Amino acid sequence: MSQAQVSDDEIFGGHEGGKLSVTATRPITQARDLSIAYTPGVAKVSRAIAEDAALAKRYTWADRLVAVVSDGTAVLGLGDIGPSASLPVMEGKSVLFKTFAGLDSIPLVLDTTDVDEIVETLVRLRPSFGAVNLEDVSAPRCFELEDKLKAALDCPVMHDDQHGTAIVVLAALRGANMVLDRAIADQRVVISGAGAAGVACTRILQAAGVGDVTVLDSKGIVHAGRAGLNPIKEQLAETTNTAGLRGGLAEALKGADVFIGLSSSTIDESLLATMAGDSIVFALSNPDPEVHPDVAARYASVVATGRSDFPNQINNVLAFPGVFKGALDSGARSITENMKLAAADAIASVAADKLAADHIVPSPLDPRVAPEVAAAVAKAAESDGVTG
Amino acid sequence: MSQAQVSDDEIFGGHEGGKLSVTATRPITQARDLSIAYTPGVAKVSRAIAEDAALAKRYTWADRLVAVVSDGTAVLGLGDIGPSASLPVMEGKSVLFKTFAGLDSIPLVLDTTDVDEIVETLVRLRPSFGAVNLEDVSAPRCFELEDKLKAALDCPVMHDDQHGTAIVVLAALRGANMVLDRAIADQRVVISGAGAAGVACTRILQAAGVGDVTVLDSKGIVHAGRAGLNPIKEQLAETTNTAGLRGGLAEALKGADVFIGLSSSTIDESLLATMAGDSIVFALSNPDPEVHPDVAARYASVVATGRSDFPNQINNVLAFPGVFKGALDSGARSITENMKLAAADAIASVAADKLAADHIVPSPLDPRVAPEVAAAVAKAAESDGVTG
Repeated sequence: MSQAQVSDDEIFGGHEGGKLSVTATRPITQARDLSIAYTPGVAKVSRAIAEDAALAKRYTWADRLVAVVSDGTAVLGLGDIGPSASLPVMEGKSVLFKTFAGLDSIPLVLDTTDVDEIVETLVRLRPSFGAVNLEDVSAPRCFELEDKLKAALDCPVMHDDQHGTAIVVLAALRGANMVLDRAIADQRVVISGAGAAGVACTRILQAAGVGDVTVLDSKGIVHAGRAGLNPIKEQLAETTNTAGLRGGLAEALKGADVFIGLSSSTIDESLLATMAGDSIVFALSNPDPEVHPDVAARYASVVATGRSDFPNQINNVLAFPGVFKGALDSGARSITENMKLAAADAIASVAADKLAADHIVPSPLDPRVAPEVAAAVAKAAESDGVTG
Repeated sequence: MSQAQVSDDEIFGGHEGGKLSVTATRPITQARDLSIAYTPGVAKVSRAIAEDAALAKRYTWADRLVAVVSDGTAVLGLGDIGPSASLPVMEGKSVLFKTFAGLDSIPLVLDTTDVDEIVETLVRLRPSFGAVNLEDVSAPRCFELEDKLKAALDCPVMHDDQHGTAIVVLAALRGANMVLDRAIADQRVVISGAGAAGVACTRILQAAGVGDVTVLDSKGIVHAGRAGLNPIKEQLAETTNTAGLRGGLAEALKGADVFIGLSSSTIDESLLATMAGDSIVFALSNPDPEVHPDVAARYASVVATGRSDFPNQINNVLAFPGVFKGALDSGARSITENMKLAAADAIASVAADKLAADHIVPSPLDPRVAPEVAAAVAKAAESDGVTG
């Protein structure tokens, strides 16, 4: 799994002129082609849609187009670097949508950080796209933004930093538990980080049946009665930490089965030594994991990171292409909890054929993943009754 | 120049699933590609842009991307059919941008017809694109919208129904005058239609030195003192109709050298008989010209239409791909009058090699046009000092 160092020249060279291109699905080589794709032919298609709005689904690209939307307030580990600087990430996302799921998408980066203005902008643009992938929006604004967008738009909306991460973390935890032959309900899970990913991971693990999750932010364990909690963390405090723990990582990790690192911090190996036997460590901070996986492996039975140069890379690309493809293919009007859980199961099932402590998730390049995820998500959308 | 009838099946088949696709400029086939286009490599590019905003021009696609924007209020000859029904036209526009100028573009159709809301939306999206092609926005709103967008955005903005048409009409008039060996300044021109195209044609012909233009709307000749003129028509009344004509087409056409039809109306051949000798008739209404070109040819020395199945097709596609390419290539912050005049001259110069009464403009498929137009527009942008 090792990987030669990529040079700055390669990276910047790979971005020269941007990474995307818009092409025609059918070439224009003669006057006849022009008469079909443009005037006078196109007028018949426009008139048909004007008379029956449902035909837009069939004769335009909007219904299969994902808007990759960001305001640039929480870009990778770089923070609030603004919309222009976030654009290479959004272009990259579009590249991945196409590469793994064959989906078309366009980056829309916004020069406003006002939640209501972002919602209003996307409502006005609604006829232009078929789904919204929110990206790199800072917490806790991202929770409000996603909620308001879901309410305002009759199409799939997903904040990938929340739910893409959560889906892959759940898939990885399922894989790790299969390796260790343990049930997910029995785990005591500690999540370090109460931002977008931390909150969504907590929720999906709870939905998957994990009974005991303890969440920490920069001030320690989130618990009921802690002063200064924002509404999201207050809600977390109510539904997590059933043991009523207080304190920091030391208090949380003692006897825990699973550690999931989702903040840019480090963790001392002495704390890992206090976890329960056969522990699981997901050190997902990027580019620097909370603990080097070789160190973590001294204490844990299964270790994963977010990096491609170590085993068990937990990467959102395993989730979002298939999730959006499944949602769009099925005509889903929203992305439900069951659709996310189905996506996690599908990812885990692809990994299952070579299951091992160093192969709890498929490779991000495994071409089977997105179609499997899409099929599972579409099926869940149909059984949830959110299609059509 | 004849062309077999295109069937409805061909037209609708050519629109199945929409006409556009977003592709990666560099393929992702191995983990290394992923590390360059996405994490962790992309973080270096984002950080570089955050530190030096000018690098967005080099390392994202925004600066070479045209937003094709419409609210669907004046789509082709179909009127106010709304944003979804306008989308096939905008996709077609994107196909032509790519085909003729190699330019990337994305359709953005808006579910609002409020001018200030459209401006606000595009201001918020400004970091996402490099130029705006406004399309199929109803008059007189289109004039206000274009003016406000130009003031609000530091990038090229052009309403194609106005200026694309005007550029090609001027190019065609130059071609016709070369055939007839006449100077443009000596012409008396009658324009039927005071909408987007009529107003812009009037202005570009005046800028090109035509001394006498008479404009008609549905109520007849636009003249000073006529009751109920909107501000745009009041301005037209002040600068046109130097002879102070009143009445309708009969009064306007008597002795005129050039008729330019830009409204969905018809013109009786008896009126064409009253024009000056060696007259020029551009019957541009689509799909039905104001007068059949064979009929017009009984009275006029040069006849043009907007249709591909008759000679001298006056089609915006001769202008907009090259205009935007020239503007983006030169880094122009706006599209000036000189850039439009230069575009018209470039189109006329491409036609000049086979100049004849039935070849006053190049074929819309002539691959020389867009590069020639782009070069001329870029040069004009530089001499106007609007670049960089």
